[in-house]
Amino acid sequence: MLGTFLENKRSKLNQQMEQQIYSMQIPEKLRESILYSIEAGGKRIRPVLLLAANEAFGGMEDRALAPACAVEMIHTYSLIHDDLPAMDDDDVRRGKPTNHMQFDEATAILAGDGLLTAAFHVITANDHLTDREKVFLTRELSKASGAEGMVAGQMLDMEAEEKTLSLEELEAIHRHKTGELLRFSAVAGAFIGGANPTQLRQIETYANYIGLLFQVQDDILDVIGEEGEIGKPVGSDVTNHKSTYPQLLGLEGAIEHKQKYAERARAALKEAGVDSSLLEDLIDYISDRKN
Amino acid sequence: MLGTFLENKRSKLNQQMEQQIYSMQIPEKLRESILYSIEAGGKRIRPVLLLAANEAFGGMEDRALAPACAVEMIHTYSLIHDDLPAMDDDDVRRGKPTNHMQFDEATAILAGDGLLTAAFHVITANDHLTDREKVFLTRELSKASGAEGMVAGQMLDMEAEEKTLSLEELEAIHRHKTGELLRFSAVAGAFIGGANPTQLRQIETYANYIGLLFQVQDDILDVIGEEGEIGKPVGSDVTNHKSTYPQLLGLEGAIEHKQKYAERARAALKEAGVDSSLLEDLIDYISDRKN
Repeated sequence: MLGTFLENKRSKLNQQMEQQIYSMQIPEKLRESILYSIEAGGKRIRPVLLLAANEAFGGMEDRALAPACAVEMIHTYSLIHDDLPAMDDDDVRRGKPTNHMQFDEATAILAGDGLLTAAFHVITANDHLTDREKVFLTRELSKASGAEGMVAGQMLDMEAEEKTLSLEELEAIHRHKTGELLRFSAVAGAFIGGANPTQLRQIETYANYIGLLFQVQDDILDVIGEEGEIGKPVGSDVTNHKSTYPQLLGLEGAIEHKQKYAERARAALKEAGVDSSLLEDLIDYISDRKN
Repeated sequence: MLGTFLENKRSKLNQQMEQQIYSMQIPEKLRESILYSIEAGGKRIRPVLLLAANEAFGGMEDRALAPACAVEMIHTYSLIHDDLPAMDDDDVRRGKPTNHMQFDEATAILAGDGLLTAAFHVITANDHLTDREKVFLTRELSKASGAEGMVAGQMLDMEAEEKTLSLEELEAIHRHKTGELLRFSAVAGAFIGGANPTQLRQIETYANYIGLLFQVQDDILDVIGEEGEIGKPVGSDVTNHKSTYPQLLGLEGAIEHKQKYAERARAALKEAGVDSSLLEDLIDYISDRKN
């Protein structure tokens, strides 16, 4: 069931994002650069989580598509900027040249800036949402992705290079860098779907564990994954002197941690008391993914 | 009268922006970098225009301060990113090291990303505006500053380097790069102040001429200004092979153009039929400024 859902939603999202970008009047090279990174694909976990949370509360899909596109645009901009020479200096992403390698640094910076800004336009120019919903989504997304959220995460991550971190420090980085956008996605979908404030808090807890789960599995795959599947050399975290869960807890300890997070995510979901089979399947999907 | 207004508003804006940034939980180095560029000062023309347009329609100042801060935060982020080595590669701005010289490139990129994102949070988290106003402001600001607006302007500007432009091409660059944010500022202030749709269109026309006026005077100052006042070497546009109004029209022609734009701005203002002495004074202020 999750497989069909993922395939169906991913193709709708891709179509919507491309339509958004083609509907804008932008210089040709800038459009190409933006489309290049949007079309590079990826798992679309954030927007899929948003759509699944919306459906869990009985929300209509067409009301959740705009914020789903917005969160993926923000995620895509962050990858473009993080790959820049001054940041993580990556030449390849998902087997293709990174944006600044395919175009140039200036274009990559501007493509990122353009995508980030467009995310807020996609939400506020949408016809299916009320003003109250647009304000909620813009406020929460700007907080989750900005200097208190995802941008802080990238800053902390760069400052941590070559340092050995405690588990608390490691989790603080992940909570900001990947956790905040995942949290936003689940909460935004539930909000549009009609969750009440108590349910929103439970979905938030679920999403926080999803975020941690996501990261532990990332670190585990770097130790035991298949290079062809994860899209980067196995063991690159060690080579890059990155602090990871397996390094801090051992591989066994990391797997135990992952299972603990999965259980807690499941418990939070049960408390929210919704038709949650999609959200439940997402726990296993993220926990067991191979890339 | 304009002098007192400018001084009074600038100090309120600076206070508000600093307060916003101190109220955020952000990594210390990122906060320092953001504050460094915010505190570097500048004329604050965009937020002052927003506040003046709001007052012209009888709006309360405290309702316009948040969007005024937001537009200046967007302007500040654009300066940080434009100065980067991959973009205009500037080491000095307003007599001080640019953000990436004072900190480093990665921090400057993230400070820009953080400021851009914060602008939308400042608007949507504000207590003085209605949801309808917040949606209008976010939608218009994201359009004016994004890949269809200011970001497009920077892209076009970089593509135009070393090329000789026609007057139409030159104006297209300026309309995007500086015009869009000035237009947003005037329209946003008038909207919050209670202007009707016809008046909004007239204020928009006024702002479009203000934008052109601003740019012609910039180009003129590069020919006849005092280095100590304009903060960069006189004649740097020629050295950098930039297309300018004086180069296309001669100095006399550029001055005539400026006067024509000022008259048209004045005419649009008269049609809007508001208490417009501040907005009128701003025409002369921008037209006659020495830096």
